[in-house]
Amino acid sequence: MPSYTLTYFDKKGRGEPIRWLLSYLNKEFEDKRIQIEEWPKIRNGILFGQLPVLDVNGKRLYQTDAICRYLAREGNLAGDNSLESQEIDSIVGSYTDLFTAVVPLWSVSDPKEKEELKDKLKSTTIPSYFKIYDDIAKSGYLANGKLSWADIFFIATLSTLDYLLSSDVIADYPNLVALRTKIINLPGIKEWIEKHP
Amino acid sequence: MPSYTLTYFDKKGRGEPIRWLLSYLNKEFEDKRIQIEEWPKIRNGILFGQLPVLDVNGKRLYQTDAICRYLAREGNLAGDNSLESQEIDSIVGSYTDLFTAVVPLWSVSDPKEKEELKDKLKSTTIPSYFKIYDDIAKSGYLANGKLSWADIFFIATLSTLDYLLSSDVIADYPNLVALRTKIINLPGIKEWIEKHP
Repeated sequence: MPSYTLTYFDKKGRGEPIRWLLSYLNKEFEDKRIQIEEWPKIRNGILFGQLPVLDVNGKRLYQTDAICRYLAREGNLAGDNSLESQEIDSIVGSYTDLFTAVVPLWSVSDPKEKEELKDKLKSTTIPSYFKIYDDIAKSGYLANGKLSWADIFFIATLSTLDYLLSSDVIADYPNLVALRTKIINLPGIKEWIEKHP
Repeated sequence: MPSYTLTYFDKKGRGEPIRWLLSYLNKEFEDKRIQIEEWPKIRNGILFGQLPVLDVNGKRLYQTDAICRYLAREGNLAGDNSLESQEIDSIVGSYTDLFTAVVPLWSVSDPKEKEELKDKLKSTTIPSYFKIYDDIAKSGYLANGKLSWADIFFIATLSTLDYLLSSDVIADYPNLVALRTKIINLPGIKEWIEKHP
């Protein structure tokens, strides 16, 4: 049985989709959480100086998306053929674009400027993506009309968007709300969330 | 035989790795180039309003990385097993991080501010990634010690970094220079570059 160690900060962020996937796959893993004070001395030992990383039997894996895609293949969550895999990847890629648009919120310190950017994102960027996702999710899922790691990745990282935008960002999108209900009740993920609310 | 139509702007940018991969795979494709004046009226018909998109037998594929990964699978450039695929994806993911750090250069209009950001990127961000890539490329390639779409993606998009930073960004990294020589001389890619200098 392979051994898994996830190293990330003591928060959900980009670690959470990996934790959910490992839980869904029923893999035991060490959930190593770095305190922010420890980070400067650990950082130099991590390629590209970024977390999360996942150690699988001593091989260190980098980059959240790439780690999730790898785990997804283990659990048949990465598509049944190359075109299905492409559709999943394109959803995750577009969602990453959305995140890239929201991330500047972290670094805005002026409260007025922050509120303005927040309002702009909520009224333009967020709807431009979420309307499309909601429309796709009429099929029940975000890609190929069936469960994939795109769904798990999306729902597992929503709390970061919620935090940054100070709202339940999918509240107005009924198919995405239904998707969330489905994902957080998946075996493994349900138990993980119960233990880590 | 599948039919391929790539729709992108009349520049290299994020279209070029797809063109190189299709050329390497010896696939004929329509290289549809949108003039910037046409874009506003075309944009609404494109999901997420972004180019490039690749039409494969009438199915529209989105997101550069996801399209490249799909094409790579056709040409055995996506790894021989799941861990190899993960290593390739993690290199591409880190390179995307680097790009995300450089992209703000597009939107800085003040010449002094632009030079300062350029200098900062050249002295810190670029070396922090390229030193690692150069070290990895001692093996001849960026992932798994053999040719993959990570190499083609990296070299095909370098011209955008060169343009943004007004320099040959890999000039000081001998293993990356050697990699470039190898990639631009691959069958298919060599002929593509000769026709599209």
